[in-house]
Amino acid sequence: MFMHMTFSVAIAGASGYAGGEMLRVLLAHPEARIGALTAHSNAGTPLGAHQPHLRSLAGRVLAATSTENLAGHDVVVLALPHGASGAIAAELAERGDDAIVVDLGADHRLVDPAAWEQFYGSEHAGTWPYGLPELLHPGESTATAQRAALAGTRRIAVPGCNVTAVTLGLQPGVAAGLIEPQDLVAVLANGYSGAGRSLKTHLLASEALGAVQPYAVGGTHRHIPEIAQNLRSAGAEAVSISFTPTLVPMARGILATSTARLVPGTDPATVREAWEQTYADEPFVHLLPEGQWPTTASTLGANTALVQVAVDEAAGRVVTVTAIDNLVKGTAGGALQSLNLALGLPETLGLPLDGVAP
Amino acid sequence: MFMHMTFSVAIAGASGYAGGEMLRVLLAHPEARIGALTAHSNAGTPLGAHQPHLRSLAGRVLAATSTENLAGHDVVVLALPHGASGAIAAELAERGDDAIVVDLGADHRLVDPAAWEQFYGSEHAGTWPYGLPELLHPGESTATAQRAALAGTRRIAVPGCNVTAVTLGLQPGVAAGLIEPQDLVAVLANGYSGAGRSLKTHLLASEALGAVQPYAVGGTHRHIPEIAQNLRSAGAEAVSISFTPTLVPMARGILATSTARLVPGTDPATVREAWEQTYADEPFVHLLPEGQWPTTASTLGANTALVQVAVDEAAGRVVTVTAIDNLVKGTAGGALQSLNLALGLPETLGLPLDGVAP
Amino acid sequence: MFMHMTFSVAIAGASGYAGGEMLRVLLAHPEARIGALTAHSNAGTPLGAHQPHLRSLAGRVLAATSTENLAGHDVVVLALPHGASGAIAAELAERGDDAIVVDLGADHRLVDPAAWEQFYGSEHAGTWPYGLPELLHPGESTATAQRAALAGTRRIAVPGCNVTAVTLGLQPGVAAGLIEPQDLVAVLANGYSGAGRSLKTHLLASEALGAVQPYAVGGTHRHIPEIAQNLRSAGAEAVSISFTPTLVPMARGILATSTARLVPGTDPATVREAWEQTYADEPFVHLLPEGQWPTTASTLGANTALVQVAVDEAAGRVVTVTAIDNLVKGTAGGALQSLNLALGLPETLGLPLDGVAP
Amino acid sequence: MFMHMTFSVAIAGASGYAGGEMLRVLLAHPEARIGALTAHSNAGTPLGAHQPHLRSLAGRVLAATSTENLAGHDVVVLALPHGASGAIAAELAERGDDAIVVDLGADHRLVDPAAWEQFYGSEHAGTWPYGLPELLHPGESTATAQRAALAGTRRIAVPGCNVTAVTLGLQPGVAAGLIEPQDLVAVLANGYSGAGRSLKTHLLASEALGAVQPYAVGGTHRHIPEIAQNLRSAGAEAVSISFTPTLVPMARGILATSTARLVPGTDPATVREAWEQTYADEPFVHLLPEGQWPTTASTLGANTALVQVAVDEAAGRVVTVTAIDNLVKGTAGGALQSLNLALGLPETLGLPLDGVAP
Repeated sequence: MFMHMTFSVAIAGASGYAGGEMLRVLLAHPEARIGALTAHSNAGTPLGAHQPHLRSLAGRVLAATSTENLAGHDVVVLALPHGASGAIAAELAERGDDAIVVDLGADHRLVDPAAWEQFYGSEHAGTWPYGLPELLHPGESTATAQRAALAGTRRIAVPGCNVTAVTLGLQPGVAAGLIEPQDLVAVLANGYSGAGRSLKTHLLASEALGAVQPYAVGGTHRHIPEIAQNLRSAGAEAVSISFTPTLVPMARGILATSTARLVPGTDPATVREAWEQTYADEPFVHLLPEGQWPTTASTLGANTALVQVAVDEAAGRVVTVTAIDNLVKGTAGGALQSLNLALGLPETLGLPLDGVAP
Repeated sequence: MFMHMTFSVAIAGASGYAGGEMLRVLLAHPEARIGALTAHSNAGTPLGAHQPHLRSLAGRVLAATSTENLAGHDVVVLALPHGASGAIAAELAERGDDAIVVDLGADHRLVDPAAWEQFYGSEHAGTWPYGLPELLHPGESTATAQRAALAGTRRIAVPGCNVTAVTLGLQPGVAAGLIEPQDLVAVLANGYSGAGRSLKTHLLASEALGAVQPYAVGGTHRHIPEIAQNLRSAGAEAVSISFTPTLVPMARGILATSTARLVPGTDPATVREAWEQTYADEPFVHLLPEGQWPTTASTLGANTALVQVAVDEAAGRVVTVTAIDNLVKGTAGGALQSLNLALGLPETLGLPLDGVAP
Repeated sequence: MFMHMTFSVAIAGASGYAGGEMLRVLLAHPEARIGALTAHSNAGTPLGAHQPHLRSLAGRVLAATSTENLAGHDVVVLALPHGASGAIAAELAERGDDAIVVDLGADHRLVDPAAWEQFYGSEHAGTWPYGLPELLHPGESTATAQRAALAGTRRIAVPGCNVTAVTLGLQPGVAAGLIEPQDLVAVLANGYSGAGRSLKTHLLASEALGAVQPYAVGGTHRHIPEIAQNLRSAGAEAVSISFTPTLVPMARGILATSTARLVPGTDPATVREAWEQTYADEPFVHLLPEGQWPTTASTLGANTALVQVAVDEAAGRVVTVTAIDNLVKGTAGGALQSLNLALGLPETLGLPLDGVAP
Repeated sequence: MFMHMTFSVAIAGASGYAGGEMLRVLLAHPEARIGALTAHSNAGTPLGAHQPHLRSLAGRVLAATSTENLAGHDVVVLALPHGASGAIAAELAERGDDAIVVDLGADHRLVDPAAWEQFYGSEHAGTWPYGLPELLHPGESTATAQRAALAGTRRIAVPGCNVTAVTLGLQPGVAAGLIEPQDLVAVLANGYSGAGRSLKTHLLASEALGAVQPYAVGGTHRHIPEIAQNLRSAGAEAVSISFTPTLVPMARGILATSTARLVPGTDPATVREAWEQTYADEPFVHLLPEGQWPTTASTLGANTALVQVAVDEAAGRVVTVTAIDNLVKGTAGGALQSLNLALGLPETLGLPLDGVAP
């Protein structure tokens, strides 16, 4: 039982994919009230022209993205290209606006300014509490410290979608000391919505249909330092990961196949136990029964991460597979879950657990 | 404001696509309590093995489909191959079970036994109140009589998914006398889930990907007499329709392109007005702004039908396009909408209006 | 047996989809020698960066599209946006270059300048011999006159891809006087490559996957006057057609479902005979055995059109379905077939008959 | 210049995907003449009912798969479930039939009977010359010994499609001693045709569309010992590989992402040189220009493997990506390439180098 605590939300970037998904999950939340919806080049046009699936608000006209329009809400969600959110948050604070600010972009995720500068090539905007409630802290086998860090926070840096998938897959083994974090390999199958609504040739349907396309191969992807940061949080001293995302012909979803060398002498039952212990009571992260492997379709539209783990004894490796919807658990749903904690609401309130399949 | 009226539901055929979707929409309904879930060959196995997206009930074990297991609920939903529901409904009644029975199959849709026998080749099981609240009755331009027919009913025959799409597209023009119902043409793009989870070669992914496949061409599809029945309800004296469904590479969705000869002398504004009048106050059927055409993706997971209409003056025809999610507005969502009416609940209660896109 | 007649070909627009496909079919032609490959903004870059599937010529550098670069070949193929080909053809002629010019664009297809101006809004560039060898002329039941028109021609206007599909489906019935050309309806499922490599939001993979999108609904599509022109060639006095294309999630292919009112009193056997007679000896247009319906996947990569026809007696309509690969029989393959005729080579030389499936 | 050497081919299993593709590549081969086409349950039906894309032979009736029907040809291709080919080859030999036998199945690939029994659970049928002309032998940096082994052979064991992709990606580094073969990781994106035309629920279009599904995770896939065998051929002493295939929504294609620990102190230029040296003169295996990554769409329908390699210095790993069409270079095209060698024909004769895209 909790008291009603209605909160108003403004969304900057409401005509993009992340902004649209944020709206979708908020529309299903019992306490959220949708406030200003802003856009850049689409300002002045109706939401229905860009998000025709959001029938509840089809007639709403988009305002310009400005602190003036965003001010005066309990919560502001920034669904903007990276580099834009730091300035807006600062301006809002300057105006005396005390909204909780949720950044769906990358600007405030990394703790280490040097890592930021190496991978993003710009000045670091600072670090905000990290919006992954399930993140393990040193010494933990179930996540409580990160939840504590999010309770009552006024700033949330929502994780990268690939990062969420890989972290959830590997952290139980890292925390339990069963896998070696210095020789990790992750290969991901990614839906196209992860690339946003940008007009690039390789994102055209004709290029995507019937095709698998790797990108950012060879250690250049910006999610690498963020994964390392998370696995260090879970107990790794040093992290080295080979990370390869690939675009596959689906609109949504991430399937992350992550492998790690097993610490010699570890038996498979111990491995399974570690994953079970970490996720037994998690509302949104589900270890599947042995032998059942996650598929992305099972998570579509849901704030759920499905995880499986197996030991390949011949290869001396643990293989773990995680499926999430990149726009829900990987972005907007994860954001709302953290926001619930920030607002003192039940963590699961209003969040979809069941996916839309087939 | 309405009083709480919790109702229990049993689902026969819970491991199939229609049964799974019925579960999904019921899980999001504030008054529904999930009772027995039954299956045929999958009895004894956990729901999670067949519907891995329904995390809320992953561990539930499927019971055998028998009246014994189905009895004792407020509502029984039959998601069974056609021909099976009449017997079960009769047996339930014989046992003195007074559940509301909702038939997702075809058995009780047609009023005319001869049409049934011609298209289905078996004995007619009888006619139940037809679960399309938006169906116009003679003389109506907005739907009230069908809602009255569903209020308090104990039996619901849920429409065919293609039928819903074509009926909603054409009925405003039929009712207003603006189009000729004796020379209709409808061509549909259909997602594969409409074919159910049956193991047939043409339903394999390898056959579907990169392909469009027509089926039941040339007047043989069983949805034809049902469309005719609906358009006669909307005011047509006689109906003749060329109806061609095609399978396209998507899991869900129907895009129905329906055309009709315009009654000579009708101007485009009158046409638009007719569609506007019929759907202006409908909660789930939305006429889009002029020039915006429905896409199936905008309805995924939602109980929404998107409609557009245009006059092609050179061709002397009206073209209307309807998009629905075949499993929601076309099946389980439409069923729940009608069930709300049967139970005296608000028609829209618990039903998703916003889709999942992209 | 024929003598060798090697010919050189230049392609303007070689980095686009139509230009790339022209290259692919020419590379498999025993007499073609690839000459200049030109592009607009991609000039100076290697072909392999834009057409990574054309391994034979991956290192070839694209030249600028200029008559200077295109001159001096036996054949010039123009794969350019509409409006561009008339000027280049004129310039080539002015230079005294006597190449055969093949226009993959729309500029020279229409005979009627008024129809051009109505649908394209610019001045008519003139009419070239129409590159559909299978087109029936008045009084014909098998196509010979169009082949005669193409034999030895120096100019070829390649048909629109949708036009080819609809024309091949309907013309036998028109020529035989079995269907009424004044109330035609065609609905098409189209792969995305038909839209070219242009950067538009609705062509993004995220918008396309899981979606069907209609476009140019209500009599506005530019292929309408071209279809009418063809059916008049086949014997219709006046043509009226409702034409609706829809984008479906595949890269290639067109499935055209075309229906026409049957002339009263016509029996189904007569209908089948008409189609059989027209296509019995066509090398690339195949009427399937009764009951087997074309799928787009069966034509991928091939210069083949698959056709089926059925009579829907209840609806009083003939339904005909045509499947083609829009880039082969619908564009580059059809162009090469006509070019063979222009060059005096066997019509089928070097053209793929078998598709790539599944 | 070579003399004509027409050869006749019979195909057992012509109604399946591998058999159909074998037919497609043979139909384009200048010296092949198609003989008997046999099937199991589809015997007696026309080829066109099962392979509607193979227009050249649509009317051909399938015979029963028997040595009687297969005997008397120059070449017999077996496209059968594993376990069936050994017996047929033996029976053919018993009859005194001296055809070259090409096995598209797994039966004769492995050298080690123990590995066969461990992964396939049946008795080993023996080992045939391995149909991967590009396979390196100990001490080689370019492949000549395997070609010598195939020249004039009467038996060919065609490699597994995944095996071809992973072997081609990794073997240059193994042969040059630049990577450690004892800690390999390969994750593959696979089109559905690799699973054949079998009726299984997870192969249905509804399950596949919008989904990525892993399978055979954790060291159980039967291609593992075959990869190890190949990399030992290329010079590895011992091989350990974590191998995870995933089904992605496309009909054809494999994208293999393979990583290996770099031998410490190796610089990136040395890595690139090794791959360049191995593939510089290969007709069908192409190392792409630096920075360009293979996509499956670029290989559709072609006998081409596209390869790229990069060094991830932070991770201490080499990442190599290989794209092939599983039915062409991965099956039928690779088979024909080896058959050309067996027959003394030019290795590339009749094989498609250019793919069908987009």
